[in-house]
This record gives sequence, structure tokens and C-alpha cells, in this order.
Amino acid sequence: MSDDMRIPRNAENDHTDEMAKIRRDFIKEKTGAELEHTGQYSIDTAVLPGNVENFIGIVQMPVGIAGPVHIDGEHANGHFYVPMATTEGTLVASYSRGMRVINECGGVKTTVVEGWMQRAPAFIFDNARQARDFGIWVTENFDKIKAAAETTTSVGKLEHIQQWSVSKTKYLRFNYTTGDAAGQNMVGKATLIACEWIKANSPIPCFYMLSGNMDTDKKHSHLNMLHSRGKRVIAEIVLKKEVLASVMKVDTKMLAGATTLANTGAHMAGAAYNGPHSANGIASVYIATGQDEANVVESHAGMLSHQLLDNGDLYMSVTLPSLIVATFGGGTGLPTQKECLEIMGCVGKGKANKFAEIVAATVLAGDISLGCAVIAGHWVASHDKMGRNR
Amino acid sequence: MSDDMRIPRNAENDHTDEMAKIRRDFIKEKTGAELEHTGQYSIDTAVLPGNVENFIGIVQMPVGIAGPVHIDGEHANGHFYVPMATTEGTLVASYSRGMRVINECGGVKTTVVEGWMQRAPAFIFDNARQARDFGIWVTENFDKIKAAAETTTSVGKLEHIQQWSVSKTKYLRFNYTTGDAAGQNMVGKATLIACEWIKANSPIPCFYMLSGNMDTDKKHSHLNMLHSRGKRVIAEIVLKKEVLASVMKVDTKMLAGATTLANTGAHMAGAAYNGPHSANGIASVYIATGQDEANVVESHAGMLSHQLLDNGDLYMSVTLPSLIVATFGGGTGLPTQKECLEIMGCVGKGKANKFAEIVAATVLAGDISLGCAVIAGHWVASHDKMGRNR
Amino acid sequence: MSDDMRIPRNAENDHTDEMAKIRRDFIKEKTGAELEHTGQYSIDTAVLPGNVENFIGIVQMPVGIAGPVHIDGEHANGHFYVPMATTEGTLVASYSRGMRVINECGGVKTTVVEGWMQRAPAFIFDNARQARDFGIWVTENFDKIKAAAETTTSVGKLEHIQQWSVSKTKYLRFNYTTGDAAGQNMVGKATLIACEWIKANSPIPCFYMLSGNMDTDKKHSHLNMLHSRGKRVIAEIVLKKEVLASVMKVDTKMLAGATTLANTGAHMAGAAYNGPHSANGIASVYIATGQDEANVVESHAGMLSHQLLDNGDLYMSVTLPSLIVATFGGGTGLPTQKECLEIMGCVGKGKANKFAEIVAATVLAGDISLGCAVIAGHWVASHDKMGRNR
Amino acid sequence: MSDDMRIPRNAENDHTDEMAKIRRDFIKEKTGAELEHTGQYSIDTAVLPGNVENFIGIVQMPVGIAGPVHIDGEHANGHFYVPMATTEGTLVASYSRGMRVINECGGVKTTVVEGWMQRAPAFIFDNARQARDFGIWVTENFDKIKAAAETTTSVGKLEHIQQWSVSKTKYLRFNYTTGDAAGQNMVGKATLIACEWIKANSPIPCFYMLSGNMDTDKKHSHLNMLHSRGKRVIAEIVLKKEVLASVMKVDTKMLAGATTLANTGAHMAGAAYNGPHSANGIASVYIATGQDEANVVESHAGMLSHQLLDNGDLYMSVTLPSLIVATFGGGTGLPTQKECLEIMGCVGKGKANKFAEIVAATVLAGDISLGCAVIAGHWVASHDKMGRNR
Repeated sequence: MSDDMRIPRNAENDHTDEMAKIRRDFIKEKTGAELEHTGQYSIDTAVLPGNVENFIGIVQMPVGIAGPVHIDGEHANGHFYVPMATTEGTLVASYSRGMRVINECGGVKTTVVEGWMQRAPAFIFDNARQARDFGIWVTENFDKIKAAAETTTSVGKLEHIQQWSVSKTKYLRFNYTTGDAAGQNMVGKATLIACEWIKANSPIPCFYMLSGNMDTDKKHSHLNMLHSRGKRVIAEIVLKKEVLASVMKVDTKMLAGATTLANTGAHMAGAAYNGPHSANGIASVYIATGQDEANVVESHAGMLSHQLLDNGDLYMSVTLPSLIVATFGGGTGLPTQKECLEIMGCVGKGKANKFAEIVAATVLAGDISLGCAVIAGHWVASHDKMGRNR
Repeated sequence: MSDDMRIPRNAENDHTDEMAKIRRDFIKEKTGAELEHTGQYSIDTAVLPGNVENFIGIVQMPVGIAGPVHIDGEHANGHFYVPMATTEGTLVASYSRGMRVINECGGVKTTVVEGWMQRAPAFIFDNARQARDFGIWVTENFDKIKAAAETTTSVGKLEHIQQWSVSKTKYLRFNYTTGDAAGQNMVGKATLIACEWIKANSPIPCFYMLSGNMDTDKKHSHLNMLHSRGKRVIAEIVLKKEVLASVMKVDTKMLAGATTLANTGAHMAGAAYNGPHSANGIASVYIATGQDEANVVESHAGMLSHQLLDNGDLYMSVTLPSLIVATFGGGTGLPTQKECLEIMGCVGKGKANKFAEIVAATVLAGDISLGCAVIAGHWVASHDKMGRNR
Repeated sequence: MSDDMRIPRNAENDHTDEMAKIRRDFIKEKTGAELEHTGQYSIDTAVLPGNVENFIGIVQMPVGIAGPVHIDGEHANGHFYVPMATTEGTLVASYSRGMRVINECGGVKTTVVEGWMQRAPAFIFDNARQARDFGIWVTENFDKIKAAAETTTSVGKLEHIQQWSVSKTKYLRFNYTTGDAAGQNMVGKATLIACEWIKANSPIPCFYMLSGNMDTDKKHSHLNMLHSRGKRVIAEIVLKKEVLASVMKVDTKMLAGATTLANTGAHMAGAAYNGPHSANGIASVYIATGQDEANVVESHAGMLSHQLLDNGDLYMSVTLPSLIVATFGGGTGLPTQKECLEIMGCVGKGKANKFAEIVAATVLAGDISLGCAVIAGHWVASHDKMGRNR
Repeated sequence: MSDDMRIPRNAENDHTDEMAKIRRDFIKEKTGAELEHTGQYSIDTAVLPGNVENFIGIVQMPVGIAGPVHIDGEHANGHFYVPMATTEGTLVASYSRGMRVINECGGVKTTVVEGWMQRAPAFIFDNARQARDFGIWVTENFDKIKAAAETTTSVGKLEHIQQWSVSKTKYLRFNYTTGDAAGQNMVGKATLIACEWIKANSPIPCFYMLSGNMDTDKKHSHLNMLHSRGKRVIAEIVLKKEVLASVMKVDTKMLAGATTLANTGAHMAGAAYNGPHSANGIASVYIATGQDEANVVESHAGMLSHQLLDNGDLYMSVTLPSLIVATFGGGTGLPTQKECLEIMGCVGKGKANKFAEIVAATVLAGDISLGCAVIAGHWVASHDKMGRNR
């Protein structure tokens, strides 16, 4: 690579309108791409350090508003409008339709079961026996390890450490509560200090890597289905037979049968989610609200459950075991993202559980809507009408 | 829900600046949220139908530029700058650093192995024997089914149909090529017509659902690891021992060992990707370029492979089996998104494979960078410096 | 290891009563173990070559007889008694109880959907592009590869070859029909010859391993759930409400609910089978009939499905995707094993599908029985009465 | 079913030679099957209650002796001969060959990391919030639950209870140590009493099922890879380059490469074990020693790890996370089975860890042998010579 291909940077202050323009011009020169719209933004570049490097402008992602959805949660209570950033036609309309069903059935009940963030180092030994004995020592010295970890943060609390022995490696998984931040960086820093303490104090000499990939950060895993990374949150509803028939033209019994079929297909496929489409709702709300955009891969995992009741109504619930949400830190403070959080009253500290409940309710709305659309045959038709037929 | 909670819509023409403002005002009245920045955009709302409903404005997602990265592909050839939309500090810097290593090692070789898009209906029968016999009939009548499906599209081609018998259900999975569109809607429509033909002509009476969840649309699945949904693309490099030592301060042997540890941790965890973090790069490029934002959940699956060579160099490759990409249709035509595609010369027809190669190269760059950072101990430090310590 | 620790062998003829005794005496001398009962057998050692080496005697595994079970299959038709070799108390009684329910409900319907045996070599190349192009060549030359493979066997037929590209490796999976043998060795031999032909004729130089572990031989895999190894066989029944109530003291609705719970638990656990216990029935019938004893790990995978009918009856089915069975070859010709096959009329050629149907019916019987026992609270009690409380 | 199809039973004493003969005669009459060899056994039928019902005789499963294998364990120390019940030719020879390699390399090091047996009831509530709150109550009342459980057993100790919330169900998983018994029945009984106590004392009304399938009993599961059911045991060796070359005609580097290929193939396939064939060794030793024959499905899961050392030697290890073993109870007391345990000095109390170490060492021997055979091309040839070409 020749030097003149290097992207211009300003060592002093790189997050400025000027530098963005210089880079856009550079890109235009190198590639011919006009970045007219990308260069038009209303936000102050002074807010960007900590969120992006080599800033050239913004992508203008359309936001639609869905709802309101009636939520009977412990943190979210009332009717909520949900901002969804998307380029997929029918998405907002479909979620809105599901929300209407929810409202007519009296609302969705939401429950946050637990919440964790992890960093999972791997300690390598000469043999398996050392690794095992080291694990015993870790258990015995948990309080000291916790103290070391928590020197780095006033918010994060190390609650427990899981262990797995594989060959001569001991995989540890540090589980923290992290307040209203997602917490990946917070727990990385805390675990680093803890590992250094361990290395210095372990009676068995060891080498470690700060992540042995059992976190499992930025990737779906069965482990995260079992041991929540982020919030484990559940949204439940009893779908009334008459409401479903009138709003969706679908019988509850049909929806029950279709859900069973879809659960089975997903099980056969080894799918991370066994209902119609958790990822659509999560991704679009995440982007609108400044969540780490890659977290959708962990967060979309889950289970759609149902039970046909004697009176013909249909109990339905979605369990999202690893919904990673933040109302503080990261991209949540950027101007448009903060505004979108504000729509739901979810800005800042003490709001993460509320936000998690709203996302779970949204996912349930989307699954009701798409599940019914597939049955009623509206699915393709609505995409024809509202989406682009890609 | 009272009527005054209903989001304002205009039956005639809802995608206008006026309607967006009316809705923002409505949201402000209902929730108190000021949507000042969200309401500032340069794009013409006339482009939005087919991409969003209930439009209120935009989210301004910062875009950083990474690269260039030297790619030796069959479709992408030369040095490419990669736009990444993100709110996560260090991300662009980290990918750029990996690209520098790639460049100094002579570039990354990329290969698109195959490409498909699927829709997977489920046909329900009275018993398993009927389902099996129906499957035989489907195989025998493939040409007619194909003809029916392809009446709906000039681009999509039905190439083969997979089958699975479970209980009295026959799950089919229609595999199409879809040109340069991602193709989810295209194949949905084609499969609907094919299913209607099947229903009308099957010698065994049947009922069907257009999706039995073996697609598996908008969710990671092991099935998609095996049978590509989107492009199966592979990026390879031989990391030179000296380059890694000088740029990353990491020995190739260390990186090999660390990768093995991470592969094993991921295997234990049942993770969708066994390297450091495919999702970060994919998500940020997807958002910048108008890909369906939820597709990252399918696309992030894959395998990071390595082999230490006799001369101390390290062969490394990333295999992404289900990278869903489009350079046409969906959000790719929106102004900023199209500009970002333009940076890479990936606008429009005939560019999907090129774009897939660039994304795969980007993922490999990110894994080299993060893999080395974890070893060298820069990981936490760089987040402290460049990111917000959430 | 000193020479006197070497197990005695006779190079001429090692499968004799004399050599068995010499080895038992040797073992007694080395370990003190008296092998009194192990040395008592009625079978002629001349039948043993091909089944075991270093023969010292037999394990006397008790056989109980379950049934009869009424089967309405395409290959098995009528009432069958099922021999089960087990040391687990309550097992035979429990399966018998389930069979009684089946009989009173009119019998179980069984369907063999398909049947394959695989060997999956891996071909290694210099880079991913070569591996991809090699795959295209394999497809184009299938007929010649098939011809080469089939030179080694008059029974085995190579039907299709699956392909997976990972990094610079091309994993192939040769799919054969193998008549009434399980066929692992048959397909190994055929694939070896095919691979040699490929290596000699491939336009791209390659190196191969006869198994790259995608067979997946002697281990459960999700792949084998999807792409049957052995028979894919389904057993179905409609459980009558009155029968279940009278025989099992369980309501069909309760059993439906319990099955859903168990399905969900298994899904969460990432289990290979989502009903109560396929492995018990399969293992005990396999041992009794001379099946390869390790095949239970592949064969026990599957899905238990159910549907509550309007009249209160309960449709239930078990789908076993990879039931590896033989009625010819391997241990099926040993005296007691052959006798046990004879009980079911399953000796020799043309009987594998019949045997597969009987095993599937047996598994369904076991799941009905245990499912009901868990609900009715008999489970622990019956083990207390009939089993040893281990 | 007509009455004359009913299998004869004696309500007073059914485990007698007479009743066995009556049943054999009955079977002959009904099916024509001569059960000559099946009826020949040396064991006293008085030992059979608790192991089988409807006893008709025995299957004579050939036993070969492999070894010795040099084990450097904490419980097994020295050279051990391993009895393997099998009908698969080459199996004993192959394991013996691997053991020879182990011996010449100085022996295998074995480590038992932990050991548990589980029963996993499911508690159903009206909604998810109740289920969550119930879980908190369970944690708070662990001591009382433990006390209730342990009233039923002097051996089993309830150590901890895992929890998972899905929908409105709380899945619990009771983890016990069970001494030298496998313990499935022991923990079933203990958990039943604990559940009854919970039901009687829970502040939130609940209904439970004694198993919600997260045990996961008699089926492989990813959960059991993570959270051991049975012993988690690891066997390690450093394979000397010269030994492998002379005994197996294989270079350590080749074996390392082949193992990586096989690991990757298994990962792609979603396999329960990523080495060549744990199940063969486990199944044959289990049958010989009276282990519950179905436990091989849980026990065969695991990971084969390797590391090429600077001097060209190859570190290799097998990790078996859920090896379910017993040296007491169940079938371990039957005459031939007890004799086989005696060969290894593993009869009775205090021997389960020793036995687990021997099984793990055996699995490692088998993987070394088969891994090398595949590389060296002996695989098919040896089956041709020693096995029946099925």
C-alpha cells in the first residue's frame, strides 16, 4: 500500500466537521463516491469520541414509530410507542399490527428474570490436574478475586464465576451485574485486573488469555441460551379468540398449530430462536436507540411458547435469555439515539429493565403478527404492497 | 387504547415531511420526547415507501471509514475502503489495524463458493406415510414446481428443493439463486405460487404453511451453517511472522495457540462463530450499506481456521456460510446507503459477489486485530483510550 | 511394559476355546480375577472371527421379552414380541406396559422414509478456490466416481455426494444404500476406492483423509438429525382418551402438556432426543440382536411429536432420523443374537426395514409408558419395586 | 390382542429357570424361534430381580481383552487389562494397538475433575413472574430442600440446584454426588421427596413434573457437555514422535493435522464428540461391566484436544464431560459383569473414580489408534482382515 492511500487523520482532534470533510474528499478522490447525504448531519461531532474513529458522516437510517403497545411490566407500565430504525418495508406496520392485538387483549405482561454480563478468560496449565486444582483454588479465593475486579468499577459487581475444564485449560466465566450499561467494556477491565491478581497469587503457575471465547461476546451461543448474557426477559399474553379472529382473521387454534410447526422446524434446523422473527424487532429498536449494533446476534436467541386454553384463548410467551440492553453509555447518548430512548422514557440510569421489557413486548407483537400473516396468507401480499419485492 | 393514542397516518400519501412532522409532534405530545435531531435529514421522503412505515425521521448513525484493505478476489480486486456505521468506539480503528496487517502480508484472497436464498414451507398430512409419498411426488414433479415458482420472477431461479420428514409433516426448503438482491421477498412470492400449484396438483390432499421455520429466516441456525443462506464466502491469508511481530507485537505461534483456545471455547459454548467477533464488522458494514439490519444474525455464523506453517507463518481463514448481501433492492437504494456502497464500487446489479468478498475480508481483518489485541494485552487498554468504558 | 504382560495370542487360530482359557488364566494370574461365568458359553468359537479379538469368553446379559406390540407397518405387520437385553430393572416391564396401551388403541403405524449409510472424506487443497473448483469437478464426474465406488460391492449403491467447503478443505459425504447391512465397512471400502480414483483423476492436485468426521460415525450429530444415517423411521399412534385413562390412569391432555414441557426442556438443554428415553429401548434391542453396540449414540436422536385432537384423543409420533440397523452381517449372525432376531422374524436379507419399524414402535411404547409414569407418579415407585435403587 | 398372546408370568416368583423356559417355549410357539443358546446360561436367576423382567435367557456377547494400558491416575495406577464386549471385528485389536502406543510413550495421565448425577423437575406457574419469584424462594430455602432430599439416601448428597426460567415454567436441576453408584434412581427418589416438600411449603402454589427433561437422562445434550452428568474425566498423553513413527507409521505432525480436520468436520456437523470414536470403547466396556447400556449416549460426548510441541512430540487429550459409571448397584453385581470389573480391580464401593479413569484412558487409546489408521490407510484394510465387511 502506498502512503497516499492512507486515510487522513488529525492527531490532535480527529472528531471534527473539517476532518470528516477532508476524509469524504479523500474518499471521493480515491473511489469516485460522492458522499453528499452522508455528509449532512445535525449532530455535534464533539459527541463522537468514544463512538467511532475515522468519522466521515452519518448513515441516515429511516425511523418509523410503532405502537402504542400496552405493557403491564414491573418497570414499564402503560402504553409505549416504539421507534424502529429499518429499511425493510412492512416491518413497522407488522409490529404495529401485533401491538394492536396485544392492546385489545388487555396488554402484555413482562418480567425481567435476571441480568448479567460476562468476560471469560482461559487459564492454561501443564496438565488437567493442575487446571482442576486451580479451579478449586479459584472457588476458595472468590472474595479476593471479587475485590480485585471491583477496584475498577463502582457499578459492576462480580457475582459468581463459572468454571469448565477442557484438556489442560480452565475456562472461567466471570458474571457481573452492570447497572444500566451493557457492560462489555466494564467487565473486560474488571476481569483483566482480577486475572492479574490471580496470576500473581495462584499457587499453580499459569498463563491466561482475557477471553477464551466462552463469554461468548458478539456471537450467538447455546451457552447464552442457558446462562443469560444481558437480561433474561419474558413477555406473556393471553390472546383472546375473538380478538384474533376479528383483527387478524385467524383462529387461535390455527395459530397454536402453526406455532408448533414452526417450533419443530426450528428445532430440526438447530435455530437460535424458534418463533418467527425476534431479530427484526430487536435490530430495529437497537439501531434506533444506540445499542451496540452487533448485540442483536446474542439477543435474538429465545423461545416462543404457547398453550391453548380450554376457553379457546391462546396463552403465548416469548423468552429472551440474553437480551443485551443499555440506557446509559455507548451509543445511547448520541443525539438521535437519545431522542428515541426518550420516546419510551428510557434515558439514563435505572431504565435498563424498563427498556428490556419494552423490547420483549415488541418481539412478542412481531411474532403474533407474522405468525398470523403466514397463516392468513397476508405475508407475501403485504410485502408486495408495502415492501419492495427484492 | 383510546382513539387519541392512534399514530396519525395519511391514507393518500404517508411518506412526506409533513406527516413525519405531524407524527413527531404527536410523539412529543404523548411522551414529551423532543425529536429535534431525528427530524433533520437530507433525504427525500419520496424514496421511503417500501422501506419504512410511520416514518418520523432518521437515526443519525456515525460512519467511520476503515482501510484500505488489499483484496485478491474474483470479484473484488485491489484496495478497498470500507464504511462502517457504528457507535462502538475502537471498532473502526481495530478493523483498520487488521487491514494494515493484511496489506503488509500481500492481501487477502477471497472466494465465493455458492449462494442461495430459501423459503421453506411445511406440508401437513394425515400420517407420515402420506408425507413421505408426497415427497417422492415433489421430486418427480420438480420441473413443474420450478416452472410455477419462476412465473413470479425473472431473476430468481429455483435450483433444488430439500426435504425433511418429521412426524406427519413434510418440511420442504426451496433453494433459489436471486441475482444481486438478498431475495427473501422474491423467494417468498415464488414459493407461494409454487405451493399453490402443489396444493392444486398433489395427488395427496395437503395443507401448507408458507414457512415451517426451516428457512431459517432472521435467525441463526445450524442448518444455515451447513446449507448456505446467502453467500458462502471464504477469506484467506498467510500472516507473515515478521509482519505480525512488527505491527501487532504478536508471534504467529501465539496467535495460533490463542485461536485454538478460542475455537475450543466456542465449541464448548455451542457458539455460532468460533473466532473473536464476526458480528461487529458485518453489522457495521450492513447498516452503512442498507442491508436488512436483522440479517447479521444469520450472517455472523462461521468458522475461523488456522494452520501454522513450517516457516513460522500462519495461514488463517474465515468461512462465512450464510452471508446475506444485496447491492440491489431493499435499503441499498437509500441515499446515504447507496453512497456507502459506492465507496466500494458495489452499487447495483452484478455486484453482490464483490460486496460479499469485501465483507469477508473485513471480518478476517477484525479477527486478526482482536485476536492479537487479546494476546498483546491491548484490548482493555484500547477500549479505555478510544471507547467509552461502559 | 514387560513382555510377560503381553496378552497371549495364537497366530494360527486365535478364536478357540483353548486360547480363551489361556487368556482367562493369564488374566487371573495378572489380576486375580476369577472368570468363572465369563468362561461359560454355548456358542462355537468358530463363529467369532470377524466379531472380536482376544476372546476370553462372554458377558451374560439378561434378556427379557416385551410385548406383543401390534404394528401396522409396511414391512412389519401384526403382533411382535421384542427381546430386550438389559440390566436395568423396570425397563422391560415399562416397555411392555406401553405396548399394551398401543395394542388397546389399535396398534402403531410405522413408516420407513429413507435409508443411507455414509463415509465422509476430506480433501485438502492449497486454497479455498481450488477446493470450490474441485467440488464442481466432483459433481460433474459423479457417474465415474460412483462406478469406482461400486466396484467394491454388489450391494452398496452410491446415490449422491454432499459437499461442504470450509477454509481450504472440501468435505464430501458419500451417501449409499446398503441393503440389509448397516454398511459402515462396506461404504468405507467403496469410498476408499472412489477417493483413490478421484485423487488419480482430479485436475487439481489433492490430498485426502478417508474420514473428515462429517460421517459422523459413532457419534451423535445434528447433521445426522437432518441427513439420515441409517433409517429415518417414524412411528405414529392415536392414543385413545379412555384407554390411557384406564390403563395408565393418565388423561391425554395431561400427557400432551407434559410432552410439551419435556420438548421444551430438551430444546433448552440442546438434547439429541426431546422425548423421555429413546436410548433405553434402542440399546436393549440392539444388544439382544447383535447390532453394533455403539450405534445407539447415533440412533437415539429424534423427535417426539404430539397433537391433541378435538375428541380428546392424542396423536403421538416418534421420528428417528438415524436408526442404524442390520439384519445381516456384523453381530447379527452370532447364535443368541440371531435367535433374538428370529423372535421378530428379522433374520437375514430383506428384513432391515421390518426391524427398523419394530424398533421405532418399541421406542414409542417406551415413551408413552415413561411419559405417563412421570405424570402419574409411578416412576420412582416402580423403580423402588422392580429396580435396584442405585 | 387376544389373551393367549399374553406373555406368561408368575406372580409369586417370576425370576426362575422354569419361568424362563416357559417363556421360551411360549415364544417358540408364537414365533417359531428356537432359543437354544439364549437359554444356556450359568448365572443363578435369583440374582436377576432388579435387573430384568420377563427373563427368557441371556445374550452371549463375546468379550475380548485389550491392553494392558499404563495409567498414571489418581485412582487407577499401573497397568490395566480392559474387557470389551463387542461384536465388531477389529475393535479390540485397535484399542490394544492404541494402548501399546500409550505404554511406549510412558502411560496416560488421568484426572477426574468432578462428578454429579441429576434429576430435573419442572414447576409450572400461572405466569413468568411467579416462576421467577419461586426460584428466589428455592435459593433461599436450599438447606431445607436438601434436608428433605437426603432423608431418602445415606449416600446421595444434594450439592446445588440450577434454575432456568422459560415462559411460566421454572426448570430446576438437582445436582447430587452419589458415591460409587451411577445414581439415577437414587436421585430420582430424593428429588421426588424434595419436590413434595417444595410443593407443600412453597408460598406460591405450583404443580410439578419430576422430570422436565433438563436432566437430560438417557440422551446426549449440550447441557451435559457443560454441566457434567456422571464424571468429568480427562486423559492426557504426550505422544513421542519416534514411538508414533515406529508403531503406527505415522508422523505426529500428520496426526495433528488430521485431528484438526476431524475437529472441524465434527464442529460443522454439530457432533457430540469431535474425535474419531469415543462410543466404541465406552459401549463395549460398559456392556462388559454391567453399566446401564443406554448411558453410552450421554457418556460418549466430549472433546479431543491436541498440541504439537516444539520437539515434534504431540500432546493429546480427551475430555469426557459426562461419563456415567458405577461400580456398585445396577448390573455391576451380575456374575459375568462383576468378573469383568474384577479384572480392573473395580468391584464395589470406592472404585467409581478408578473405573472412570480407565474408561477415559481406553477412549484415548482408541482415538490414537483410529486416528493413525485413517492416516496410514490401514483402516479399511484392517476391517477387511479382521472384521466382516458389512
